[in-house]
Amino acid sequence: MTRIPTSRAEAEALDAADPLAPARARFRLPEGVTYLVGHSLGPATEMAIARAEKTATEEWANGIVRSWNTAGWIDLGQSVGARIARLIGAKPEEVVVCDSVSVNLFKLAVAALPLAKERRVMVEDDEFPTDQYMTGGIARTTGAAFDHLPAGEGIEALAKGGVLIKSAVNYRTAEIIDMAAFEQEARRTGAVIVWDLSHAGGIVPVKLNDSGALFATGCTYKYMNGGPGAPSYLYVAAGIVGEVHTPLPGWLGHAQPFAFSKEYQPAEGVSRFVAGTPTILSLSALDGALDAFDGIEIGAVHGKAQALGDLCSMQAATFGLTLGSPAAGERRGGHVSLRHQEGYAVTQALAARGILSDFRTPDTIRFGLSPLFLRYTDVWDTVAALGDILEHRLWDRPEFKVRAKVT
Amino acid sequence: MTRIPTSRAEAEALDAADPLAPARARFRLPEGVTYLVGHSLGPATEMAIARAEKTATEEWANGIVRSWNTAGWIDLGQSVGARIARLIGAKPEEVVVCDSVSVNLFKLAVAALPLAKERRVMVEDDEFPTDQYMTGGIARTTGAAFDHLPAGEGIEALAKGGVLIKSAVNYRTAEIIDMAAFEQEARRTGAVIVWDLSHAGGIVPVKLNDSGALFATGCTYKYMNGGPGAPSYLYVAAGIVGEVHTPLPGWLGHAQPFAFSKEYQPAEGVSRFVAGTPTILSLSALDGALDAFDGIEIGAVHGKAQALGDLCSMQAATFGLTLGSPAAGERRGGHVSLRHQEGYAVTQALAARGILSDFRTPDTIRFGLSPLFLRYTDVWDTVAALGDILEHRLWDRPEFKVRAKVT
Repeated sequence: MTRIPTSRAEAEALDAADPLAPARARFRLPEGVTYLVGHSLGPATEMAIARAEKTATEEWANGIVRSWNTAGWIDLGQSVGARIARLIGAKPEEVVVCDSVSVNLFKLAVAALPLAKERRVMVEDDEFPTDQYMTGGIARTTGAAFDHLPAGEGIEALAKGGVLIKSAVNYRTAEIIDMAAFEQEARRTGAVIVWDLSHAGGIVPVKLNDSGALFATGCTYKYMNGGPGAPSYLYVAAGIVGEVHTPLPGWLGHAQPFAFSKEYQPAEGVSRFVAGTPTILSLSALDGALDAFDGIEIGAVHGKAQALGDLCSMQAATFGLTLGSPAAGERRGGHVSLRHQEGYAVTQALAARGILSDFRTPDTIRFGLSPLFLRYTDVWDTVAALGDILEHRLWDRPEFKVRAKVT
Repeated sequence: MTRIPTSRAEAEALDAADPLAPARARFRLPEGVTYLVGHSLGPATEMAIARAEKTATEEWANGIVRSWNTAGWIDLGQSVGARIARLIGAKPEEVVVCDSVSVNLFKLAVAALPLAKERRVMVEDDEFPTDQYMTGGIARTTGAAFDHLPAGEGIEALAKGGVLIKSAVNYRTAEIIDMAAFEQEARRTGAVIVWDLSHAGGIVPVKLNDSGALFATGCTYKYMNGGPGAPSYLYVAAGIVGEVHTPLPGWLGHAQPFAFSKEYQPAEGVSRFVAGTPTILSLSALDGALDAFDGIEIGAVHGKAQALGDLCSMQAATFGLTLGSPAAGERRGGHVSLRHQEGYAVTQALAARGILSDFRTPDTIRFGLSPLFLRYTDVWDTVAALGDILEHRLWDRPEFKVRAKVT
């Protein structure tokens, strides 16, 4: 599973024997591009494009408003959520797709407050910015206490009995967190955790139910390839969903939306966390994109990601780069972080060769290793190009240092 | 402008002379359907479909992550917002497209609280359900007092100096509210209003700036034809945006999102109300849809809607129906409500003839009169069919009484 090629011929042999290799044909990738940014925006699949087109031309243009019934739009957030459940170790009825991760973090953490021993929200300061800002916003809005914790102190902070927003995989380092250990500690202390699965879902075998997780949300446009800004999924454990409430009660989270009642009565399950009308075009594309996972187990996906990442990590030292990710594949999500003072220019030098990667300030190059479309040879060739660029300082050109608006 | 035809020949003549008639060709309407549900879900335009397809196949599939820069995705919420500003009487920089109306109502009303004399949220009990539920949710989340007001008592309640969520056009009756009068009263009493423009935007000449409005949000999938669940627009007056804060601070509302800073620093203008990553496919379709308004003034749109509505209203009495909308066209938005005890069955009998309308419990038939694609003859024929159905009780068949999930 995690065999690392030591020659290009070996990489070719691994591709030839790769049980995930056929999945690549499901993607519509541009010519001449090696795409190592699947951890930021997954590429388009044929099925996502076809599904979006069907929704626009058949369901919307022909069906118009009737499609809420006839095309299943009204339950699409639930039906897509049920498909995602398999990928994150949840029951189908525990997951719904709605809103963004940012908005869902707010909803879940506020809903979690009454379950926590202490009216307090907590977040570590190396989390993705939205998680940090939103935790502050929750504190200001609800009056809960706020702990902006130093990186790595989340597990100790559970002793305070508050609500912790925590990523299952860190966005910068790709480190995988031991969710079960956190949950065990939270049970002991009366704390509650809201998991951000954005960099975990679709790449790491997340086991929400088995780890005892109560609340989670995650991004669908990274490893799930749902499309730019595709709506996020939201999970609440079946055992507690009946006793928790969204701070943003919307009409589609009502038990009977079409009764148009004056009084709010939450829907029975996780649907109570739906607020407004779902963005059907984006949600349909996501539905199509999930077809790429048909017949595939996330364990196999992560296994290949480990091998691809090991290949990058091992070369990093050779090239004089600092590894910003765990060296052990089983502790690393779907990307590898390589630190270099001129990291941005390095990514631009790679891009000039058709190798797309990304950069996170101040010095982190990220290689996203989505195993459904990346080949061992792609990563082999990337590492070779990186070695060439570093050895000959080919990144040291003024045009490679001009920052784009979005890095 | 508001001439009402008294014969089919006259309706034909009005169509022939209608300056808005050419806009119909911009829509992709199904064969054999008269569509009177544009107030719920606007139909597809050629430009919306083309734009969504371009986003999927060119921007996403070919550009992938580069399109955040090269296709302008990163500013799409702002650029589409600037286009909508013209339709609602705002300055281009005062409007951004993001999230749903439900979520935006929460953001705006919480942001408005510190500006109000009293820490109190208020809503009338004939508002669209999401407005009522969300107001309750705000009260529970923030600890603000909550007044669930009887219908029509919003203007008196401004004396309490709280934050009122108020629709500019009522979703059931289509009654147009005098926004300037409300704002004037709010200034006098220290109250603040958050406007829900869902049934007003794109059909009624809303004048946010001129009426002194501070906060507003509205739906883009009704009269703006943005597509099912298209994201909503959010307005904050330029004069106050610098001093108000969203309770849901997300990474894309940061002054420098790509600095990935630990500390939240709100963007300068209305962009601070953006939370997560925008749903680009749905947002692109909306961008294309707005092309249908190119060269068209909302005053002309509302003028034709009045004429079409007057034609329906005048016949209602003849047929023994109760008019649920203002009889005066200038006080009515884009739909006409006709009340009938078996209203649902009536809408189904009309649907059997290819005339789509909708129903709101308990007894309201709504005819949505979107002037960009509906002809005078369409409405003439609808009224004739309605008369036939009512006169011969053709609605009285069991199959017309079976409720669909979505009405």
